[in-house]
Order: sequence, then structure tokens, then C-alpha cells
Amino acid sequence: MSNISQPEITFINGKLEGNKIEKIDRRIKNLKDIFFDKAALAEINPETIVYEVESYFPVAQNTEGGLFYGITYIHPGLVGNEYFMTKGHFHKIKNRGEFYCTLKGEGMLILMDEKRNTWAERMYPGSMHYIKGNTAHRTANTGSSILSFSAYWPADAGHDYAIISEQGFSKIVINNNGKPALVDR
Amino acid sequence: MSNISQPEITFINGKLEGNKIEKIDRRIKNLKDIFFDKAALAEINPETIVYEVESYFPVAQNTEGGLFYGITYIHPGLVGNEYFMTKGHFHKIKNRGEFYCTLKGEGMLILMDEKRNTWAERMYPGSMHYIKGNTAHRTANTGSSILSFSAYWPADAGHDYAIISEQGFSKIVINNNGKPALVDR
Repeated sequence: MSNISQPEITFINGKLEGNKIEKIDRRIKNLKDIFFDKAALAEINPETIVYEVESYFPVAQNTEGGLFYGITYIHPGLVGNEYFMTKGHFHKIKNRGEFYCTLKGEGMLILMDEKRNTWAERMYPGSMHYIKGNTAHRTANTGSSILSFSAYWPADAGHDYAIISEQGFSKIVINNNGKPALVDR
Repeated sequence: MSNISQPEITFINGKLEGNKIEKIDRRIKNLKDIFFDKAALAEINPETIVYEVESYFPVAQNTEGGLFYGITYIHPGLVGNEYFMTKGHFHKIKNRGEFYCTLKGEGMLILMDEKRNTWAERMYPGSMHYIKGNTAHRTANTGSSILSFSAYWPADAGHDYAIISEQGFSKIVINNNGKPALVDR
């Protein structure tokens, strides 16, 4: 029947497919602000990919009531004793929440409120995480393979990277004798 | 470390687990309005479960910027030649969108705009569906096993069941010699 259509995107066998998937990557050269150990950072090839994001934006940016979807793939790696991680951000409209659902790998979701209290949730395949509004969020790959997770967020949430770029989170996730630990910065 | 916590919910091996999961079911007796063939309906045990929903509400209903998550399980079955399906609704705040991601089974996502134009998207494992704002949505199980899908929607979307309860969708999905077809009501 002509009034029955195929889905615009599919996620089958760990692969997101569809015409409207947008892909970006973030390399060491794009992430110089976020890692603590600048000497270790200087020794890594700046083209090294830290993470990749595939996104699906079915409506325009800032559409009230709309939702976006994406998958983030964080490569395994360390900068000094700090795990490869995402930039981290608050939402521009601060009360917007977000859902994460871990697909593969092992990691840590690092959360910080506006008073700079920081905590973390363990990520593993099937773990689901609700990120409340007014909460900065960042993910770190604490395993030895790619950490991937899907995310759903409001189309009008926007990203505010500035605070994190300037001040970081108040705690960082480090490799402490082979185990992840959340410690003061 | 005490500041690293476990996730509140997990979805592992097809099972949603966590303290805050809320479960409901909808039976034939709850769905008398939505099926067309009232004679066929009268012959089915009214306690027969048509679908079940498991939901996770991490913030209060109507929280602006919040998100909710749920999994719907539609049992296989027919009422006359109409497949077992959900009630269907517009959102109360009409511009709120929603994401569906099919987990198991075969089905149809039936969509209707406010001018009563109705169309459908085929659902199968891994198919993903964005439901735009101002669009009524219902799902039908067109297969022989349970159809399950996860959904993500704004916490302030709300449900408006009244229009669908009174007027239905303008088209229905029927079993036409073993194949689903979307036809005028």
C-alpha cells in the first residue's frame, strides 16, 4: 500500500542507518581544554579520534516539543591517567533533561549540578540513565573497547559548552591502578 | 567509591528492571471503543490482555524539559480483521514529539494529523520512528508474536485520548488475506 512507508532510520546489528544521519568526530586537537595533564596531551597525535557522534535531527534545531536522537562512540584511551571522554555540557535551556542508554563497552556518566557538586553513574550494556535538567553531563570510556550509547534529548535544549570548557567539572575520572575513580580535580 | 552509583534502571536481555518501573495493562474490556467490529469484540473474553506498558518517570508529570521512557508490549491477536492495537492519542500539549524504537515483533505505527490524514510506518526490530508534534499515534501488532518497542517522550506532553476514543483514526489497519493493509474506516 502506498500509504505504508518504511522507517526513516534503523538501528540494526549495532549500525545506525538512514539518509538523514549526521556524523561528527572530536579529536585530541579539538579537546585540549578538557584534559588535565597537558604534558601527556602534547605527546598524543592531535588527529587521534577521541569520540564520534551520529545524530538524527527529524525537526529543526530549537523546535519546541521536538526531540533529537544520537549515538556516541568513545574510543578507549588515556591522556595521562584520565580516560578519553566527551567535552561535557549544560543545556542552553538549562531545565532540559536527556536519556542515555548504554549499548556497548564500559564507562562512567559524570554529572555536575550548578553548585559544582559532581557524581557519577556506572555505564555498561543495558544501563539507562536519566540526566535531569540543570545538570552538566560528560561520559568517559573506562574500558578497553569502544563505549557506545544512545541519547534522546529535546530539540530546543541546545548546548552550553563554555562553563565546562573554562572551569571543567569539579571532579575527574582517573585510572587508579587499573580501576576508575572519581577524584577532586 | 561512594560517589559512583549504579544506574537506576537497566534494560538487559529484553527485560526492564529497576525499583521505579510502573506497569499497567490494557484489556479487551478497556478498549471497547477502539475496535470496529463490535460483534467480534463481544466474543472475546473481556479480561484478555491486548497490551502492557512498563514506564519510568524520573521526574514529576508535567515537568517542563523532562523526559519519560517506556516499553509497550502488544500481544498478537485480532478483533474481527483488525489487529490488536493501542488506544492511540494526541499529546495534550500538541506540539510534543516522541521517539519509538522497535525491539521485537512486527507491526505498524499509525499516524494521523489534525486534518485527519492518516498514514503508517512499518515497525520491525531496529526500526526507529519519530512522531512529530500535532500527530496522533497508535501501534498495531501485525505479527504472530509480541510486538515491543521503547518510547521516549516529553514529561509535559500528556495524553489526549478523547478525540481518538470518539472519532477513531480515519484509517484502520486490517488483516487482508494475511497481510496488513491500511484502509478507510
